Amino acid sequence: MRSHTVERVEITPVAFADPPLLNSVGVHEPCALRAVVQVHTSSGLVGLGETYGDAAHLSMLERAAEAVVGASPYDVGRLWAVIGDALAGRNAAAHADPTGTALTGKMLGSVVAPFDSAFYDLQGKIIGEPVWALLGGKHRDTVDFSAYLFYKWAAHPGAEPDAWGAALKPDEIVAQARRMVEMYGFRSLKLKGGVFPPDDEAAAVEALHAAFPDHPLRIDPNGAWTVETGTRIARRLGPVLEYLEDPVPGTGAMAQVAAQTSVPLATNMCVVENGHIPEAIRQAAVQIILADQHYWGGFLASMHLASLCRVFGIGVSMHSNSHLGISLAGMVHLGAAVQNIDYALDTHWPWKREDDDVVDTAHLTIRGGAIAVCDRPGLGVELDADRLARMHETYLATEIRTRDDTGYMRRLRPDYEYICPRW
Amino acid sequence: MRSHTVERVEITPVAFADPPLLNSVGVHEPCALRAVVQVHTSSGLVGLGETYGDAAHLSMLERAAEAVVGASPYDVGRLWAVIGDALAGRNAAAHADPTGTALTGKMLGSVVAPFDSAFYDLQGKIIGEPVWALLGGKHRDTVDFSAYLFYKWAAHPGAEPDAWGAALKPDEIVAQARRMVEMYGFRSLKLKGGVFPPDDEAAAVEALHAAFPDHPLRIDPNGAWTVETGTRIARRLGPVLEYLEDPVPGTGAMAQVAAQTSVPLATNMCVVENGHIPEAIRQAAVQIILADQHYWGGFLASMHLASLCRVFGIGVSMHSNSHLGISLAGMVHLGAAVQNIDYALDTHWPWKREDDDVVDTAHLTIRGGAIAVCDRPGLGVELDADRLARMHETYLATEIRTRDDTGYMRRLRPDYEYICPRW
Repeated sequence: MRSHTVERVEITPVAFADPPLLNSVGVHEPCALRAVVQVHTSSGLVGLGETYGDAAHLSMLERAAEAVVGASPYDVGRLWAVIGDALAGRNAAAHADPTGTALTGKMLGSVVAPFDSAFYDLQGKIIGEPVWALLGGKHRDTVDFSAYLFYKWAAHPGAEPDAWGAALKPDEIVAQARRMVEMYGFRSLKLKGGVFPPDDEAAAVEALHAAFPDHPLRIDPNGAWTVETGTRIARRLGPVLEYLEDPVPGTGAMAQVAAQTSVPLATNMCVVENGHIPEAIRQAAVQIILADQHYWGGFLASMHLASLCRVFGIGVSMHSNSHLGISLAGMVHLGAAVQNIDYALDTHWPWKREDDDVVDTAHLTIRGGAIAVCDRPGLGVELDADRLARMHETYLATEIRTRDDTGYMRRLRPDYEYICPRW
Repeated sequence: MRSHTVERVEITPVAFADPPLLNSVGVHEPCALRAVVQVHTSSGLVGLGETYGDAAHLSMLERAAEAVVGASPYDVGRLWAVIGDALAGRNAAAHADPTGTALTGKMLGSVVAPFDSAFYDLQGKIIGEPVWALLGGKHRDTVDFSAYLFYKWAAHPGAEPDAWGAALKPDEIVAQARRMVEMYGFRSLKLKGGVFPPDDEAAAVEALHAAFPDHPLRIDPNGAWTVETGTRIARRLGPVLEYLEDPVPGTGAMAQVAAQTSVPLATNMCVVENGHIPEAIRQAAVQIILADQHYWGGFLASMHLASLCRVFGIGVSMHSNSHLGISLAGMVHLGAAVQNIDYALDTHWPWKREDDDVVDTAHLTIRGGAIAVCDRPGLGVELDADRLARMHETYLATEIRTRDDTGYMRRLRPDYEYICPRW
């Protein structure tokens, strides 16, 4: 056996239209970047991964790609060591870079992840089993997602308004929620906050609660609040919130808020790598950790994370950046295989144009707020070469090479300042 | 796809000769019990597991066996739920047992484990990959084992002396170590203690150090000491010990010793299930956890445990009971796939007669203190029906149905009392 080995890796940066979604650091640029990783085996199979498309990340992916040539698609547990060594210049002659610095934690996990994805995709294609089976079996037949509501402008400056229109006030957020729930059937709602004064955002959450009294609600100001504000808003919104995500920046501040409220605190900011976990547990800073295969290091590392959370009684939800169908497929597999997924997963999916994708996504339709877990081998998505080429053209055509919500905002509104915490 | 499903399970209790090895609760009986679990699929494959052979355990295995019929060999992540439900009488009509009590932790893990082993064995046989590949790849080509030294009698009462002779004094322990190192090349030594007064056992460890100055040494009194004694012996032996295993009983007592010595403390007693981990970490009670696929719930659960230990900076070693070749093969696969196996694994292997086994074990020979990791599909061991039948006959012939080192000792020495801690 051992007949399937990695022969070469293709990394293709792509770009796709992104609406002007507001957040605590600025506003989404007109294009979001992703990278598609294709791992080709000696046996003619192709495994897929999707990850960030920023320039620095692409450069690390290229070095990692060299390091995995010759590996078996079963070597998922060795990727951290193999890629970590390569990026640190420790991979013998081929990478004798004396200036190499060891990457660890989230950054290394982000480079490892698309290879882990592609390797599992290959394993599934080899044996004809879906990725969720390779992760130990599925605990559910559908995976719930949450509506991800954003304050937003009607359009990028100079561009046509998108179908969603502006959302700057509570009633506009409620209208956005209505439209999104109608289209996708979401049964829980999350508002990206940190954009307007906290009491305005709290009013929006209260308006959502009045309009959707049975929908669990979340708000995520991305650490834009002080401990005092976070505690105050937690108390104000406590009765209507499922959880409060990253009200304040840092483990210490989160612990202070947690000690003063009974609302569960979630994070994808203060605990984003294994090294952050012990202190967060010691301080009882977070009650829910948002997994994300893209930076926790892939499926295997995310399964380990979920298991650890279970041991410590920490809930598990899932984080999302703007993404395409390979990532969505991965979230469904992981969401099926993790026993203790306690909450609907975040996704930016509705903010992407349906035809902006590099894979077939018809079977990934969100209905009733959930995606059905399918039995297709591997990730269950097939690359469309034409669409990949078109989206790569879009990448080549845009000047964006690194996501910079703050810089974009400052170009549009020169008086904008990034402050954290802001309120 | 989905073409391999579990059709039936065979559970065969077996017995094999065990020398009179002394420990803190008595002495090993003339026979050790194990159960061999064969999981047969609709596709005609057989996956193997090995576990404890005690009567109560066999009864739980039988109920678990019914619950896994129809499962896919990929459903390893669902075994805890499926078997847990079945044992708790929650598995609908088939198990409508109103008296069913939920099994958790170590006991449930012990029932899950042989099925997890058999499922991984099947996965490997289906695809032609070794179990270590299915666990994420191997981090080493050989897995180190430690010599497991025991105080012992020359013979069971009324029986012929075995080849090892008596070992009741330091020089006899050193002689035992010499013989075992000569035969197997072990490069680390562990003494099972808790048998004689602590200072006598400390003298034996010091004698081992004098005879084997370069061999890492361990002693494991199985919690037979008080905190005062444990701390004193830890200080006395500190300079020569690799680690001190379970000097005292319970997480609280371990934490007290740990706070007063720099010798790393290991355990397979106070942390034997996930529920024990948070408090042990909170109290900094243990520096090394001994994994054991047989009670931590199999390979998948052991991989999760090792990952958790890595996050918290806890070392990983491996525990052993008297076992046969299926278990040894599993230890080698797990020992290859766990990145942070920091210590040579325990094994009772030398105490078993070479021909007492149910599988081929020639490739599992310990040379230079290590076993080479092999590429055979699955666990890489094949059941020998004749040997299985013979060892099952031995089981039927013995009166032993539950391991009882204390009861056996009391029959031989009526004044023997089990006391913990004793010193």
